[in-house]
Amino acid sequence: MKLWGGRFSGKMNPAAWELNASLGFDQRLAQQDVRGSLAWAQALGQACVLTLAESEQISLGLQTILIEFQGERFEFQESDEDIHTAVERRLGELIGPVAGKLHTGRSRNDQVATDLRLWLLEHLPILDAALADLQAALIERAETDFDLPMPGYTHLQRAQAILLSHWWLSHFWPLQRDRQRLGQARQRTASLPLGCGALAGTPFPVDRAALAESLGFAAPAPNSLDAVSERDFVAETLFCTALIGVHLSKLAEAMVLFSSAEFGFIELSDAYATGSSLMPQKKNPDVFELARGKSGALIGWLTGMLVTLKGLPSTYDKDLQEDKTPLFNAFDTLNALLPVLAGALHSLKVRPERMRAAIDSTMMATDLADYLVDKGLPFRQAHALAGKAVQYALEQGKALEALSLQEYRALSEGFGPVAIDDEVYGVFDPAYSIARRAATGGTAPQAVKEQIQQAKEVV
Amino acid sequence: MKLWGGRFSGKMNPAAWELNASLGFDQRLAQQDVRGSLAWAQALGQACVLTLAESEQISLGLQTILIEFQGERFEFQESDEDIHTAVERRLGELIGPVAGKLHTGRSRNDQVATDLRLWLLEHLPILDAALADLQAALIERAETDFDLPMPGYTHLQRAQAILLSHWWLSHFWPLQRDRQRLGQARQRTASLPLGCGALAGTPFPVDRAALAESLGFAAPAPNSLDAVSERDFVAETLFCTALIGVHLSKLAEAMVLFSSAEFGFIELSDAYATGSSLMPQKKNPDVFELARGKSGALIGWLTGMLVTLKGLPSTYDKDLQEDKTPLFNAFDTLNALLPVLAGALHSLKVRPERMRAAIDSTMMATDLADYLVDKGLPFRQAHALAGKAVQYALEQGKALEALSLQEYRALSEGFGPVAIDDEVYGVFDPAYSIARRAATGGTAPQAVKEQIQQAKEVV
Amino acid sequence: MKLWGGRFSGKMNPAAWELNASLGFDQRLAQQDVRGSLAWAQALGQACVLTLAESEQISLGLQTILIEFQGERFEFQESDEDIHTAVERRLGELIGPVAGKLHTGRSRNDQVATDLRLWLLEHLPILDAALADLQAALIERAETDFDLPMPGYTHLQRAQAILLSHWWLSHFWPLQRDRQRLGQARQRTASLPLGCGALAGTPFPVDRAALAESLGFAAPAPNSLDAVSERDFVAETLFCTALIGVHLSKLAEAMVLFSSAEFGFIELSDAYATGSSLMPQKKNPDVFELARGKSGALIGWLTGMLVTLKGLPSTYDKDLQEDKTPLFNAFDTLNALLPVLAGALHSLKVRPERMRAAIDSTMMATDLADYLVDKGLPFRQAHALAGKAVQYALEQGKALEALSLQEYRALSEGFGPVAIDDEVYGVFDPAYSIARRAATGGTAPQAVKEQIQQAKEVV
Amino acid sequence: MKLWGGRFSGKMNPAAWELNASLGFDQRLAQQDVRGSLAWAQALGQACVLTLAESEQISLGLQTILIEFQGERFEFQESDEDIHTAVERRLGELIGPVAGKLHTGRSRNDQVATDLRLWLLEHLPILDAALADLQAALIERAETDFDLPMPGYTHLQRAQAILLSHWWLSHFWPLQRDRQRLGQARQRTASLPLGCGALAGTPFPVDRAALAESLGFAAPAPNSLDAVSERDFVAETLFCTALIGVHLSKLAEAMVLFSSAEFGFIELSDAYATGSSLMPQKKNPDVFELARGKSGALIGWLTGMLVTLKGLPSTYDKDLQEDKTPLFNAFDTLNALLPVLAGALHSLKVRPERMRAAIDSTMMATDLADYLVDKGLPFRQAHALAGKAVQYALEQGKALEALSLQEYRALSEGFGPVAIDDEVYGVFDPAYSIARRAATGGTAPQAVKEQIQQAKEVV
Repeated sequence: MKLWGGRFSGKMNPAAWELNASLGFDQRLAQQDVRGSLAWAQALGQACVLTLAESEQISLGLQTILIEFQGERFEFQESDEDIHTAVERRLGELIGPVAGKLHTGRSRNDQVATDLRLWLLEHLPILDAALADLQAALIERAETDFDLPMPGYTHLQRAQAILLSHWWLSHFWPLQRDRQRLGQARQRTASLPLGCGALAGTPFPVDRAALAESLGFAAPAPNSLDAVSERDFVAETLFCTALIGVHLSKLAEAMVLFSSAEFGFIELSDAYATGSSLMPQKKNPDVFELARGKSGALIGWLTGMLVTLKGLPSTYDKDLQEDKTPLFNAFDTLNALLPVLAGALHSLKVRPERMRAAIDSTMMATDLADYLVDKGLPFRQAHALAGKAVQYALEQGKALEALSLQEYRALSEGFGPVAIDDEVYGVFDPAYSIARRAATGGTAPQAVKEQIQQAKEVV
Repeated sequence: MKLWGGRFSGKMNPAAWELNASLGFDQRLAQQDVRGSLAWAQALGQACVLTLAESEQISLGLQTILIEFQGERFEFQESDEDIHTAVERRLGELIGPVAGKLHTGRSRNDQVATDLRLWLLEHLPILDAALADLQAALIERAETDFDLPMPGYTHLQRAQAILLSHWWLSHFWPLQRDRQRLGQARQRTASLPLGCGALAGTPFPVDRAALAESLGFAAPAPNSLDAVSERDFVAETLFCTALIGVHLSKLAEAMVLFSSAEFGFIELSDAYATGSSLMPQKKNPDVFELARGKSGALIGWLTGMLVTLKGLPSTYDKDLQEDKTPLFNAFDTLNALLPVLAGALHSLKVRPERMRAAIDSTMMATDLADYLVDKGLPFRQAHALAGKAVQYALEQGKALEALSLQEYRALSEGFGPVAIDDEVYGVFDPAYSIARRAATGGTAPQAVKEQIQQAKEVV
Repeated sequence: MKLWGGRFSGKMNPAAWELNASLGFDQRLAQQDVRGSLAWAQALGQACVLTLAESEQISLGLQTILIEFQGERFEFQESDEDIHTAVERRLGELIGPVAGKLHTGRSRNDQVATDLRLWLLEHLPILDAALADLQAALIERAETDFDLPMPGYTHLQRAQAILLSHWWLSHFWPLQRDRQRLGQARQRTASLPLGCGALAGTPFPVDRAALAESLGFAAPAPNSLDAVSERDFVAETLFCTALIGVHLSKLAEAMVLFSSAEFGFIELSDAYATGSSLMPQKKNPDVFELARGKSGALIGWLTGMLVTLKGLPSTYDKDLQEDKTPLFNAFDTLNALLPVLAGALHSLKVRPERMRAAIDSTMMATDLADYLVDKGLPFRQAHALAGKAVQYALEQGKALEALSLQEYRALSEGFGPVAIDDEVYGVFDPAYSIARRAATGGTAPQAVKEQIQQAKEVV
Repeated sequence: MKLWGGRFSGKMNPAAWELNASLGFDQRLAQQDVRGSLAWAQALGQACVLTLAESEQISLGLQTILIEFQGERFEFQESDEDIHTAVERRLGELIGPVAGKLHTGRSRNDQVATDLRLWLLEHLPILDAALADLQAALIERAETDFDLPMPGYTHLQRAQAILLSHWWLSHFWPLQRDRQRLGQARQRTASLPLGCGALAGTPFPVDRAALAESLGFAAPAPNSLDAVSERDFVAETLFCTALIGVHLSKLAEAMVLFSSAEFGFIELSDAYATGSSLMPQKKNPDVFELARGKSGALIGWLTGMLVTLKGLPSTYDKDLQEDKTPLFNAFDTLNALLPVLAGALHSLKVRPERMRAAIDSTMMATDLADYLVDKGLPFRQAHALAGKAVQYALEQGKALEALSLQEYRALSEGFGPVAIDDEVYGVFDPAYSIARRAATGGTAPQAVKEQIQQAKEVV
């Protein structure tokens, strides 16, 4: 069944029909389509376009269809061009010619835009919950691993000692921003296209504000031409999912590194790792590699959507049909990925001894510099002197804490008066270094404790 | 001058130095860098890391530098690796060794992230204002061209009659969403990295909340590892600018179409058009073509930034240096483009007679169907009958309004009882068709009037 | 069944299993997988790793499986992790423990890379043929519409008269370049990974050159680490398909424009157009809009693949599993689209009278300038004088050919000696303008005839 | 100076002028523009459109301009809209009104397309040479480090022992494919647009084949409409550079990993590393991080170009002006990056002892499995038994080679008859494992030697 064709004399080419038909993917909007139609039938009734009886008859039919969809008993037919057509065809079978009154004052242009927004309004909370679960796993890890020291890296070079809990939380906040962004995208999604007709608005006195409310939208879209053609809510959601993908790729990259033999900071649970068909000793972090790899597809879907939108003149063009697949794909990808990542984080085993062993005293070189600042050197000179000490130690094959006071004093010659004393050896204790970074956002235990508290409040 | 090197014995390869040096682009952050340092010097003073005298000495030196930048009298040296180094080098020249105390407890990692955020916080309002000006131009056009009818298109086929004012406003709302998004991006940008050190936090008792306030940030970033490495605010801004690019490409595509000989709906002012070096009769809509074309670069910069971020483990990696160029480019592109588009819209000449002539009666076929609905046909049948009439009229080479009542009645046979009368000819008046679409967001004059009002309120 | 797990004590989490399993998409490689295994069994036999009997037994089993796939009678099991596992599981059912010898010296890493290349080597010719069919449709149109004049556009402004055949052929050559690129991509695809093992090469004395030949590859890949991890052939193919998408979007954009009421140059066949659910008079160029819209997805898949590959260290990472879906999607998209476009071009109706009517005499302004050049003016001055004439004619509301000789002479004052005579009126004939452009690649009938000949030779 | 404007009465808005002007970036095409004009003047002379005297006069003037450009003495003026205008303006100053004859039968559309192709034809060899230099550095490393064993990784898990030389070469071949692709892109670039006029071809009897030859092109473009508008050569080059970026990002990722403390396989030369402004002990692999990061921009430029091209109808649109910046940027980026990478590779220090120490005996588990295959087990069972041994060894905290024969025999119970003997301990020698992989493309010394030979032949 197709809803048009009055003026057409020829039959559509089968390959063209297939290309054009959207039922393959838009049947996912089945329930949203019916619920949109239920609201529309009611609105037409209130506007006296339909009689009370007609409105009720249509509503009853639609409810039957909704139940069929929910029970997966709805039968599509090959001739159904899209989900809207399928529903209307079925409605006709159920209630006869009065079904033909449902589409009064409406177009598939405002209908499909409404369906897709409804779908997204329902599915964004699911994504939000999955993100919150991953955040919870990160908080849990931060609490479990609260006071474990580890090397912090910049440029993948050991930089300064930090707490593992602090590191876990560094992956909490990006997700928090993601959720905030998704929440704001959701608000913009809640602008109702229904009642905009094909492009110019509906000619019937429908109360669109009431209609919006009945469907859970914030407000009717203010311009019909814009409403039937804008897919900003899709692009914005795809940006959010692409950036989530990037965030997950960062976490994943670190997990892959940390589970390597060289780092050896974590060991994945067997439940979240795989083996090799050729090399029996392997334990591969596939789930994290997949998370990293899938960031590609997520970015690609965003790019693709923006390209599709580029250069279209205003109002509906068929190109817009390409909005659904990337949106569904992005949702499905994250919806499959996020719980697995949460599970993998929850179940992995940390190896504190490996992390501790990776903290060497050169990582406290900044603390040495700070000590020298305390002793009166300007930071720049303190930094230079500490650097000189590191190089000297490397050349001597010694650790910084193994240099004698005499050696330190010799190194400090030419740097102005600086009274290096025994206390210098205190700076090479990672716990000391960590504890000093107690300003808000720092890695000191107290600061991390407050951070966990803050995280729990916002999550 | 470079701020590191204590432990380095070799000299850097010149080509590597050049590749690594960022002064070429980060000097644009000069004033932000100085202002960040001023706040930092003050914070170090308040934390008693610097004496009052030191803090004041440094502040005075920095203010001198700020004035040098503002007066474009600052002299860079070839050995300046980046803007931070250049400022610190100059500070040393101005105030001597105490300059070396400024970098205490700070790293270029938190410093550059702060500089870039400061820059963006200052420049987002400029973008916002330019968008608001374009919106104002659209409102002005909507008021000037208020009641001019034109054909509305879907699939670039003439669909229904609309008001040109309604069409102009369909480009207003996307920009409104853009501004809303940019405003929300700005809030997330206002999270202060300063005081996060290289990665682990600052070891000095700096009051980061006060520091944030003094620099106009909303709050200190809650996690130092995240703060020095996250570039979400860049990616999010680039998404906003990419989507603005898409919106401008839509407007541009329509302007290019409308200024073609075939449409002929508008004529560009000579002030905003160009000619051909070979074809003297041409008047080319270059500014709109450039707007459309530049959406490519804007999308490309977003893509590029996401790619750069993908797969980096947490905390600072040098890859992040690639954040500045796309951000500056995106800003500059829109900042150059938006005023020109506003000017072009303001100055173009509308040709109402061409728009009116493009409205043919088949565009009122929906109104004919609606009329038949009024006469009792279900919409689906009404739609089919109207379609049949269109096809018949096409075959007869007649306009719909030229068909006789007899012909209409003959066509209606087999469609159930429907009493077509003289009133049918009323539906072919575009004004009638337009006036009927009076629900919120529709094209009826009254609805558009309300829409203009709403637009003026939110802009 | 999974091919690993000897050292694993725990069971895999079901959601992680699902995420990890690739059977959903890699079963499309079923036949390629079997054929690769057949060749491998033979190679192992020739290398005396398998006895003749074993090799034959395995081959027989694999051939049975191949027939099962071809007859769509192969039964997958839920526990099949991927296509390789499924095939090996089935082989074991068919021939018993000797099946376990097939994987000797091979890994899924070299196996899947081989499968995907085999698949592509088989499917690139299909794409090539579909492109050639579209090219044939363009040549057919060029011959059918050989001498129809139409306006040529730059900046979507009428520029110069051209032949429609010339215009059709302007879409032929991009496809020719596409096919050339695909052919070269195919050559690079024909580099055999099989025999590279997991990463380090196979420890058995397999003759990889013979293996390559038996599978239709050009040569064995020269480096095992590279061979198991490079997906350049996927990225390159996706670039080719993205650029094809761009080419189709250009053709599509023009077809959408030309089938608008304003241009009216073509009318689509009913077999390749659709209608509106609300507006019965509409005839929408959906197939072209979809072609244009799908260029987004095609570009997105390329982007996504490049992102996935970015930053992976050498040799196999699980991220690479993300290579298949975009490749399959890109192939399917074009494979569905290209025949429809060819059909749409073949069946559309050209409206010569509309095209002719769109050629106005200002389009011959360049010819006027050239005439003035003949009369001795330098081109720059001739161009300026022609421009002056166009402006004068516009102001007078006259066509260029309606200006009197006197008016021309008056206009030419101040331009140096130029003897404008009656012959000037000859330049306003589109046929004259077209015929003059007879240099290679020009729009003159003779040049187009040669171009058609050239096109037929290369296609 | 602008080359158009005869029909324009108003003056261009300054901001619009600035937006439209391309001199800022197209002046890079200065020499190409002059050389194209020289060839055109000659062609016009041969076609008797110019007299011999005129042609010579113009050529002399152009040669003067060329020398001015080469000596960087050419003075641009604010009113120069683009490079073509600047050259023609200067030519007029030098030789008077006859300069106005140069543009006869030519348009900026075919001119700029020719200029850009000429530029690319000249610059692709520079890129090719830089790639070849990096390849040479890889070969040099492969020879220097020929027989150093290292762990090979998959999934970043230690997998099998390989030769470092083999690993270096795994980065050679991708660059070889890149150069091949660039070479093929170059052939497609060598299609001459000049003589296609604005869109329809040139009306003068210019011999385009001779013109192509004189400018070093392979042939004249076969269709004028296509020739002035296609930017496939830009898109294709940008794809090549994006994929090069991906290849460099792989190498860079590995170098970053290998220079971490955890891997410690290499140490960068001070000449190619940087330090930290805060942490004196750091030695950062910035050049590799920048290489990795810049792959983002390279991919972004490709995406951007494809977006710009998407949906443009055929022939010249101003959007195409956006082709130059990404092409120049991509070239400059790689041209700066490649020599630095070659230098960094050349100068880095390998730490063989660290690589050797990272090879543990579980990496020979495949060899153990192969040994069991030799002893008669089907590979699948051998793999399972080896896996069991690995797990057992892990549980016992022993290395595989430390298990007793008795233990091995106990483990093999239930696996069918397999006579494990003393020879089993031979398989745990990395050199043995490496030497076994002697098939083409494998990591055995002999195979790598042949690979180096092959690499030297193709480079």
